[in-house]
Amino acid sequence: MAEPATETQAAAPVVALLKNELDIVIPTIRNLDFLEMWRPFFQPYHLIIVQDGDPSKTIKVPEGFDYELYNRNDINRILGPKASCISFKDSACRCFGYMVSKKKYIFTIDDDCFVAKDPSGKAINALEQHIKNLLSPSTPFFFNTLYDPFREGADFVRGYPFSLREGVPTAASHGLWLNIPDYDAPTQLVKPLERNTRYVDAVLTIPKGTLFPMCGMNLAFNRELIGPAMYFGLMGDGQPIGRYDDMWAGWCTKVICDHLGLGVKTGLPYIFHSKASNPFVNLRKEYKGIYWQEEIIPFFQQAVLPKDCTTVQKCYIELAKQVKEKLSKVDPYFDKLADAMVTWIEAWDELNPTGPVPNGKAA
Amino acid sequence: MAEPATETQAAAPVVALLKNELDIVIPTIRNLDFLEMWRPFFQPYHLIIVQDGDPSKTIKVPEGFDYELYNRNDINRILGPKASCISFKDSACRCFGYMVSKKKYIFTIDDDCFVAKDPSGKAINALEQHIKNLLSPSTPFFFNTLYDPFREGADFVRGYPFSLREGVPTAASHGLWLNIPDYDAPTQLVKPLERNTRYVDAVLTIPKGTLFPMCGMNLAFNRELIGPAMYFGLMGDGQPIGRYDDMWAGWCTKVICDHLGLGVKTGLPYIFHSKASNPFVNLRKEYKGIYWQEEIIPFFQQAVLPKDCTTVQKCYIELAKQVKEKLSKVDPYFDKLADAMVTWIEAWDELNPTGPVPNGKAA
Repeated sequence: MAEPATETQAAAPVVALLKNELDIVIPTIRNLDFLEMWRPFFQPYHLIIVQDGDPSKTIKVPEGFDYELYNRNDINRILGPKASCISFKDSACRCFGYMVSKKKYIFTIDDDCFVAKDPSGKAINALEQHIKNLLSPSTPFFFNTLYDPFREGADFVRGYPFSLREGVPTAASHGLWLNIPDYDAPTQLVKPLERNTRYVDAVLTIPKGTLFPMCGMNLAFNRELIGPAMYFGLMGDGQPIGRYDDMWAGWCTKVICDHLGLGVKTGLPYIFHSKASNPFVNLRKEYKGIYWQEEIIPFFQQAVLPKDCTTVQKCYIELAKQVKEKLSKVDPYFDKLADAMVTWIEAWDELNPTGPVPNGKAA
Repeated sequence: MAEPATETQAAAPVVALLKNELDIVIPTIRNLDFLEMWRPFFQPYHLIIVQDGDPSKTIKVPEGFDYELYNRNDINRILGPKASCISFKDSACRCFGYMVSKKKYIFTIDDDCFVAKDPSGKAINALEQHIKNLLSPSTPFFFNTLYDPFREGADFVRGYPFSLREGVPTAASHGLWLNIPDYDAPTQLVKPLERNTRYVDAVLTIPKGTLFPMCGMNLAFNRELIGPAMYFGLMGDGQPIGRYDDMWAGWCTKVICDHLGLGVKTGLPYIFHSKASNPFVNLRKEYKGIYWQEEIIPFFQQAVLPKDCTTVQKCYIELAKQVKEKLSKVDPYFDKLADAMVTWIEAWDELNPTGPVPNGKAA
């Protein structure tokens, strides 16, 4: 597992599950050569590429991929003044792709993520595993010690209440990383040589009431069930903080999933994360987040949404209100972020006018 | 992994961690030939064998093991009238061993559990892994996506609050089973041929507020931190229910650990579980539990312990009170069980007069 898989072309022919129901969202500032390796797995799908930074730069996409590409000018044109909610010079801009997609499912991946190998040496079709995770139920109300009971060869163990075995719909699937682990800058600095070589063959539901650090590098979700909560916040250019975009989305998403009775899974699939980002740059981006999170996380742990919040949008607007009330005292940034959260929902609803509501029923 | 390890004798010389601080508790009705396979791992430790059923029967223990053995006559003699809290004709009697131990740590294992092999074919020293789990902290307040951050090659991921990285003391380590999974009778009946062949290389903390089905087959705990909560209830002879002894202990233990700020881990180590018990017999033992648990689990999920419950004993007596108040209406059995819970604590305190309290401070 010290190297990515290189012979993905030779992988068995892929059945492209949900081919017409899933978009792959990729934020990038460079040519997308990394797609070559993913070709057998991704080529059947539509890509939404969100170009970050200088819009005059041309991003090359390998031949044969079906894609749409948005740069900053496109975002400004499409959203008008509401474009302010989309981060610039930060991969947080990816969430624009979630908004313009018209598909039920999203898979998002960073352009420094390659195909990993399982312990038998086989190239891992990460997307296929995410789809399996999303299409099988979650079990947030009680822990199953043999992990995902819906995987082949597994089930609910003795003592698992039968009334809970139906599970709940899965809203998100959080995949992991071999090679470079997703560490913060201080840990990167302290352990520059640490590589993740442990392949843990498990998928599990994160229990209700438990928050987790959601990484946006290798993530899939059901856009109809949870899309409007997947806002990656205000990061990068002009903002006091970076590298908390996915964390923010994860906290909001988990609180809303818990409220709406939806599930979040973590574990498989692994991707091969090729390159550690610069820890010094990361430290500059992160340092405010590192102390802010000591207040933000208790805030989300205690957040309660009223019963009349029955859609993701309503939940999200309510969370924005609570962020303004309770986190603005931490830093004025949160006041601005709370406003951007509202703008995000307005923009979402504008682009998704008859947008689906939870459980897939039309609004 | 379809077979247990047979060459454990050839395993590298074992460093017996905590040799003088841990007892191995084994409930049994038969000769303990299974210990032969465990010899390189268990022989340095003291065994407490709790003989179930007919006390006139002689249990043979392989030569070279240091042990004490208690049969029903011994239990009656030592506990007098309080012996009523110890189950008869059920492996729940094992908890008597926890009570008479004078060590800080307990490992308990069933006599149909053999040495499992890891994916490389190496015999797994289950006890050693349990000790590692118990000696490293738990992280119940926030989920770490790379699992136990204290394992070699792992750490806390980006977004994990630094204030929580110290963790909390680990009270219990719940190990898993290859080959025969721990299924209830209905699942055994439906999937008679299912075998667990998935080796998941992970240890994780069960988050605060989440209950789990604790299996007593392969379990270790810190007796000083949580011992008095490890009561396996009234099962077997004269009782309306069986096979819920470990579940009961698990629910009580988890609620008390959550209250006291202690951790419970699950995952590694695996043992090889050799023989499925008879599903028809199991169904008879379990069927009441299968519908009772639909009320018991919500009861435990909602149980709140007052702040003045600062020791395991106080917590347990309070839980007994709540069981009597809220579960007696489910069945008169719970009234009897609540009384037995109190008797158990009285007997515990009698045998452990200067018993340690949480955090290892002397009472």
